[in-house]
Amino acid sequence: MEKIQKQYLAALRAEMAKAGVNTVIISGTDPHQSENPPAHWRDREWLTGFWSTNGTNGTAVVTPDQALCWTDSRYFIQAADQLKDTGFSMMEEDGPNAVNLVDWVTENTPKGAVAAIDGTTFSVSQAQRMEQEFTDNGIIFKTDFCPFDTINPERPPRPGNKLFVHDEAIVGESVDSKIERTLAEVKKEMANAVMLSSLDDIAWATNLRTAGDIAFSPIFVSYLYLSGEQRILFADADKINDEVMLHLEKYRIEAKGYDEVFDFVHSLPKSVRLLTDPAKTSRTLYDSMNCTPVFGGAGVAKLKSIKNESMLGSLDKAMEKDGVALTRFFMMVEKELPSGKLTEVLLAERLREIRLSDPTCVDESFASIVGFNGHGAIVHYEPTPETDVAIEGNGLLLVDSGGQYTLGTTDITRTIAIGTPTAAMKHDFTLVLKGHIALANAVFPEGTTGHQLDALARQFLWNEGKAYYHGTGHGVGFFINCHEGPQNIRLNTNPTPLEPGMITSNEPGLYLEDRYGIRLENLIETVPAMNTEFGQFLKFRTATLFPFDLSLCDTSIMTNDEISWLNDYHLMVRNRLTPLLSPEEAEWINIRTRPLTR
Amino acid sequence: MEKIQKQYLAALRAEMAKAGVNTVIISGTDPHQSENPPAHWRDREWLTGFWSTNGTNGTAVVTPDQALCWTDSRYFIQAADQLKDTGFSMMEEDGPNAVNLVDWVTENTPKGAVAAIDGTTFSVSQAQRMEQEFTDNGIIFKTDFCPFDTINPERPPRPGNKLFVHDEAIVGESVDSKIERTLAEVKKEMANAVMLSSLDDIAWATNLRTAGDIAFSPIFVSYLYLSGEQRILFADADKINDEVMLHLEKYRIEAKGYDEVFDFVHSLPKSVRLLTDPAKTSRTLYDSMNCTPVFGGAGVAKLKSIKNESMLGSLDKAMEKDGVALTRFFMMVEKELPSGKLTEVLLAERLREIRLSDPTCVDESFASIVGFNGHGAIVHYEPTPETDVAIEGNGLLLVDSGGQYTLGTTDITRTIAIGTPTAAMKHDFTLVLKGHIALANAVFPEGTTGHQLDALARQFLWNEGKAYYHGTGHGVGFFINCHEGPQNIRLNTNPTPLEPGMITSNEPGLYLEDRYGIRLENLIETVPAMNTEFGQFLKFRTATLFPFDLSLCDTSIMTNDEISWLNDYHLMVRNRLTPLLSPEEAEWINIRTRPLTR
Repeated sequence: MEKIQKQYLAALRAEMAKAGVNTVIISGTDPHQSENPPAHWRDREWLTGFWSTNGTNGTAVVTPDQALCWTDSRYFIQAADQLKDTGFSMMEEDGPNAVNLVDWVTENTPKGAVAAIDGTTFSVSQAQRMEQEFTDNGIIFKTDFCPFDTINPERPPRPGNKLFVHDEAIVGESVDSKIERTLAEVKKEMANAVMLSSLDDIAWATNLRTAGDIAFSPIFVSYLYLSGEQRILFADADKINDEVMLHLEKYRIEAKGYDEVFDFVHSLPKSVRLLTDPAKTSRTLYDSMNCTPVFGGAGVAKLKSIKNESMLGSLDKAMEKDGVALTRFFMMVEKELPSGKLTEVLLAERLREIRLSDPTCVDESFASIVGFNGHGAIVHYEPTPETDVAIEGNGLLLVDSGGQYTLGTTDITRTIAIGTPTAAMKHDFTLVLKGHIALANAVFPEGTTGHQLDALARQFLWNEGKAYYHGTGHGVGFFINCHEGPQNIRLNTNPTPLEPGMITSNEPGLYLEDRYGIRLENLIETVPAMNTEFGQFLKFRTATLFPFDLSLCDTSIMTNDEISWLNDYHLMVRNRLTPLLSPEEAEWINIRTRPLTR
Repeated sequence: MEKIQKQYLAALRAEMAKAGVNTVIISGTDPHQSENPPAHWRDREWLTGFWSTNGTNGTAVVTPDQALCWTDSRYFIQAADQLKDTGFSMMEEDGPNAVNLVDWVTENTPKGAVAAIDGTTFSVSQAQRMEQEFTDNGIIFKTDFCPFDTINPERPPRPGNKLFVHDEAIVGESVDSKIERTLAEVKKEMANAVMLSSLDDIAWATNLRTAGDIAFSPIFVSYLYLSGEQRILFADADKINDEVMLHLEKYRIEAKGYDEVFDFVHSLPKSVRLLTDPAKTSRTLYDSMNCTPVFGGAGVAKLKSIKNESMLGSLDKAMEKDGVALTRFFMMVEKELPSGKLTEVLLAERLREIRLSDPTCVDESFASIVGFNGHGAIVHYEPTPETDVAIEGNGLLLVDSGGQYTLGTTDITRTIAIGTPTAAMKHDFTLVLKGHIALANAVFPEGTTGHQLDALARQFLWNEGKAYYHGTGHGVGFFINCHEGPQNIRLNTNPTPLEPGMITSNEPGLYLEDRYGIRLENLIETVPAMNTEFGQFLKFRTATLFPFDLSLCDTSIMTNDEISWLNDYHLMVRNRLTPLLSPEEAEWINIRTRPLTR
């Protein structure tokens, strides 16, 4: 059967010929540079056939005789498979066979010909890199080529979900206070107004949320303009009901149509020095500005990473609810395992049901990764009917999942034994656990960054010539995105120090191709540790509440301190979860949090 | 008594008035950006009175009514003291009270007035930063103001020490091979010639050395030009004897006078694309270029950091000699301690004598740091007659020293107990030792940088709210500079990975003001560890050979692995040193390398 992508490709090439475009570059994201764009902007996905529920990284390039899709090493296997018979070939963005997209386009577009993008879906920085390279090489660069509605009559519309107000009793800060702090950061960067494009920044600043605009995140499609004089939310009118309108009025925020943002920035006088994040703002929006753009925005983006007492208290409640959900889920797995009917897809569905049965959980925070044995070794594995396998025999089951609770966002990974684990599995599990504990236990001076701590989580694996290639931790939003900047814990350099109130994941892992995957993830809060003659020291407080599989712990390679940490953690899990559990569930947790001894 | 600096200052101001200069900025280094400049270029030292044998960091600024000297936090106490009654005041380059020198000059020089430097002693990068700021603010920037010979008739001449050839049996690589590899790096950076300004690069490339040009380093004052067609060493004629001339002829290196370099680069045609390191090349040299400068040079600078088998074998011999010297030194300390006559200065002198009694040791690699109790807590302490104290009573003695052996450069720090150490001293010593061992034992994937490993050495101190503020490790040259780039092990970001053949120091410490200082330093070689399905892994091999003070080890906070590492290390020290020692010395080492047990 011929795939529909070949028809799309032919239609695209016809539009290119009509517009005099030789080469088109198609973005994998939206005007807000979202990690997980709404369906409306998933043009690269339907055009190429390469997709994923959790959002994929990919950029397509089409010329009269070539059609290519770039992606990174996390997706090489998946993309190569999904691109079969679509007319597209995969190109590698990283690794030893990497080809630079901009270089490729430069070499494969004749001098004097046109290379084009839809400037609404590329950031200022991305477009600038292209423009410089192309124009230096005699290629004409156009930024207004958007033929997607014509090519695909069934292109989904812009999402029209209603907004709602995120309870200020949970959020702990008024919109006025947030806007005031935002404008203070704007002033520090020598600007007098800011246009927020990043949807998580806007949700944070307005205390507004929705469900459905973006999969797995309650953020909504909009722009937000803030200055000392004016506050404007640019969003489709059908998103705003009476309750939200009252909220906006309360905080003197004017509502304008989503598309009006372009005319608005065009109407701003030169005296407006508009703080513009070049990595988040679209080229088209930038081109529309008549005001004076000031590149920056790191200070604004950082505000939401520091959670206040109210949020941290709420998150603890979300963690308790999540711990209860996981207790029920893993009890079910244990009970139904002998039936032989459990599969990865079924488990992902059941986990979603259990989590969403709590009324404060409005969505999962990403599509669950449920990977048995070899599938657990695929870091970004999402079970589908085509890949699904039964959970049976012996091995390791990796479950990475999370919830979008109005009380906070959760993200947890556990790896459990199915049947009888091998000694190698136990050994590897324990190496990963030792790294997890080393990071959880770390004490460090104020000003320390994640890249300075990352090796603590990897050292035990490295000692045996083992490694994992993902970061050890990402920032986590509060009922916003599950992945949030600016801090993280990775080998890559990141200038942002870890600060009290930041929530970050602690998720070392190990992946043995076609054999098994291990990942152990809790969320950790940065908190003060002590103040000494050497200054202020910080540490982590683990927020996630669910036991690690004791049957996989090899105590012979654990120190007494590590065993104590695990026992203390399990005692906390038991004490916090038991009051919320049925007697049967409490008994199950009681056994799984029993003290580990040598 | 009035200090002579006031006379210099008056003479300088007279010269400034004559030349129409309002503000002069005086460099602390030479035309080669040496860390430790020859006496000839120590103008800032004699002018301000702020100096140190090991080379100081400082820049002076003089206006008609102000005289200031900037330095960094390592020198605040020393500089404030030495600058008393000189007419100069200290300014802080880093820390909470930091003032930016360029900003200060910009604010304190009237529009239309002249700010001047001697362009031979400022790098292209430094001068460019000044030029941009000054000219943007209407200040005229002059780069040819050099009144030092006039102001100080006793200004020392340029050093005229004879060169000698560093034995190629030790070096293990011919000059031809080094030049070939250098030119390959030059080509990678799209240049076709290179002018080396950095004296360590030149000594490395030519296999030539001297004694006396630069304190504690056998490098010599020169420039080296290399292209496919021409090789020219620019050095004062009196440095070159017949043996060196034969060596130069053998490798087709032309000798020209040191000052001819300016005319030479002026005579080079535009078609010569001259690789120029903007951080190492003087502004005056750059201004003289008629060819096309190409900024870069990291690849060239990195070549010397990777030591070959021959050098590594020689270094092992140097380490044995150094271990023998330290054995004799610390035996002497122990024997003469009861006399009550030992002082820091005396120990530094005795250590120098003992080390230099080996004919292959041509110099110390820096002025020994011998600090008892509170003095040990001053990181860059050098004992002088004014600060000297007797070694008596109870406490800790820190000795940081090294030798310039023709077989390689050594650098070692040991901290020993004098009298009866307190439990706190033992505890702190052991924390530092645990960090030292954690780094010495580290295994890490190829591509790992020092800033990713640094926390391993700090973690045990951090856990107790303790810290040290210097880097954990610096690169070490081979019979060149004791401090060498590009790799290091610091919290600061450094993009250079640790590679096999690199020699780096491992020197965590702890400094308790007015109480005691602890530093434990060995040199470590990066070596392959293993190759697995996860790639190539590296580790360290400790090269330095001398026991740590077992009486300061608190085994109650050490793991079995740490005790094993220490015992294995001590066994190696004993096996390697014993054949070179007298029976009495061997017995002393035998006791000090006995197995540690709980």
